[in-house]
Amino acid sequence: MNTGVIITSPANPRIKEIRKLREKKFRKYSGLYLVEGLRIVGEAVKFPDLLHTVIVAPELLTSAYGQELVKKLQRQPVELLWVSAEVFSSISEKDGPQGLAAVMRQRTISLPEREIDSSALYIALESVQDPGNLGSIIRTADAVSAQGVVLVGNCVDLYDPAVIRGSMGAFFSIPVIKTELSDLFAWCSRMDLQVIGTSDSASTHYAAVRYPWRVLVWMGSEQKGLSEDIQTRVNQMVRIPMAGCSDSLNLAVATGIVLYEIVNQRSGRNPMEVGT
Amino acid sequence: MNTGVIITSPANPRIKEIRKLREKKFRKYSGLYLVEGLRIVGEAVKFPDLLHTVIVAPELLTSAYGQELVKKLQRQPVELLWVSAEVFSSISEKDGPQGLAAVMRQRTISLPEREIDSSALYIALESVQDPGNLGSIIRTADAVSAQGVVLVGNCVDLYDPAVIRGSMGAFFSIPVIKTELSDLFAWCSRMDLQVIGTSDSASTHYAAVRYPWRVLVWMGSEQKGLSEDIQTRVNQMVRIPMAGCSDSLNLAVATGIVLYEIVNQRSGRNPMEVGT
Repeated sequence: MNTGVIITSPANPRIKEIRKLREKKFRKYSGLYLVEGLRIVGEAVKFPDLLHTVIVAPELLTSAYGQELVKKLQRQPVELLWVSAEVFSSISEKDGPQGLAAVMRQRTISLPEREIDSSALYIALESVQDPGNLGSIIRTADAVSAQGVVLVGNCVDLYDPAVIRGSMGAFFSIPVIKTELSDLFAWCSRMDLQVIGTSDSASTHYAAVRYPWRVLVWMGSEQKGLSEDIQTRVNQMVRIPMAGCSDSLNLAVATGIVLYEIVNQRSGRNPMEVGT
Repeated sequence: MNTGVIITSPANPRIKEIRKLREKKFRKYSGLYLVEGLRIVGEAVKFPDLLHTVIVAPELLTSAYGQELVKKLQRQPVELLWVSAEVFSSISEKDGPQGLAAVMRQRTISLPEREIDSSALYIALESVQDPGNLGSIIRTADAVSAQGVVLVGNCVDLYDPAVIRGSMGAFFSIPVIKTELSDLFAWCSRMDLQVIGTSDSASTHYAAVRYPWRVLVWMGSEQKGLSEDIQTRVNQMVRIPMAGCSDSLNLAVATGIVLYEIVNQRSGRNPMEVGT
């Protein structure tokens, strides 16, 4: 591989800036974030507008896929930063760093104001705390062809490395929208989206509901569930029944269960008949 | 609260031993592990045979529930170790330690040799790697009244603190069994359990199958999915359909989706009709 000049000092000012992207406050200040690994960088390069800098450690980049990717990037107008294995490891959060990372530009996505799809499916999260959960939910949203994930309240930083790891490639393909509660409800009303809320104390079984074609599903936070305020404003509350000693499922698991019920109904399945 | 002598030095030999339980090798060596927090200790005390030592920091234990729990424990034949807030923090992995932890005895659970339930539901995991996933799956297993979770291959340490956190109270109530592949298949055959495997390349939709009453569901590892060896030995392979750019769901999410299909069918739901 033809490389540029290789940075060998972890104290290099550019490298120091990149390392700072591990911290939320510096991500916020710079409007940038870091992604790492062959697979995620492979997805990231499909979004050239978001790509700020690609970091390559030729010593570590042993995979043919990775080398091919870098060759392709060398023909594109993106800055490549060549670094030693030691420098790369100083940036990396992985045990076995693969020698490829990228600095990305954050993007701000708003609720769409144009007409939305007649089968629009959105997931709204209230104050989600765990980055792994948020990442898994973005990944599931992608798997069910959702139009977006909406974050309301005091949510974990979207650009936390664990969110990006958890979402796999879906991080770039699924729009994640931050907004205010009142704006979201007003938008749902304008767009004719039915709003479903989830709580373990709701009386209706999640699989007994016929989900409408345009739907937004609310999931509450890990600790507190969905707030009373939201519960009173949705069109329908549903519950995932649980036996056993726990009173809740993991948030990402619960989200997946409800979303797959919705997509199965879209494939023609009838709601479940539940004895009263 | 009447307390015993309060240990104030983090270098106290007992405290050092307890701190070592963060390391897998010392957990293995000692046969012990540590749980932390009001809720999990509240569940742990229901299993007095497993309870080795309870650690209390009276300065930190401000909740009425926690204080009541400790009073109850003072009347029971379990050792209580009283420690200062500083000592407790040296043991704790939490940001806001609640002042209550317990050293527990590990237990070895085997596949049951007596007749099993006519609606037995087991989840088998091949080389699960992520402790959060294992914890979430144990929690879901509890929510669907499964009889047990079976670990095969090179799985993450069951006593990793992240497994225990992820499983919430279900860690004690759901039997987790470690065994060999051949023993498990022989047992399923003896017990007349139908064996279902999952893979994104299977041809049958997971919701289109009529799940038998006695069933074991195999889930593969996060990285590699279910091995060919297992795929060829199961009674039926199923797939969770996915759109989008990802080729898989989070393992705990996928497990939850399949398990809730099974429990819904047990409540009378018919399998989905899928066009061919």
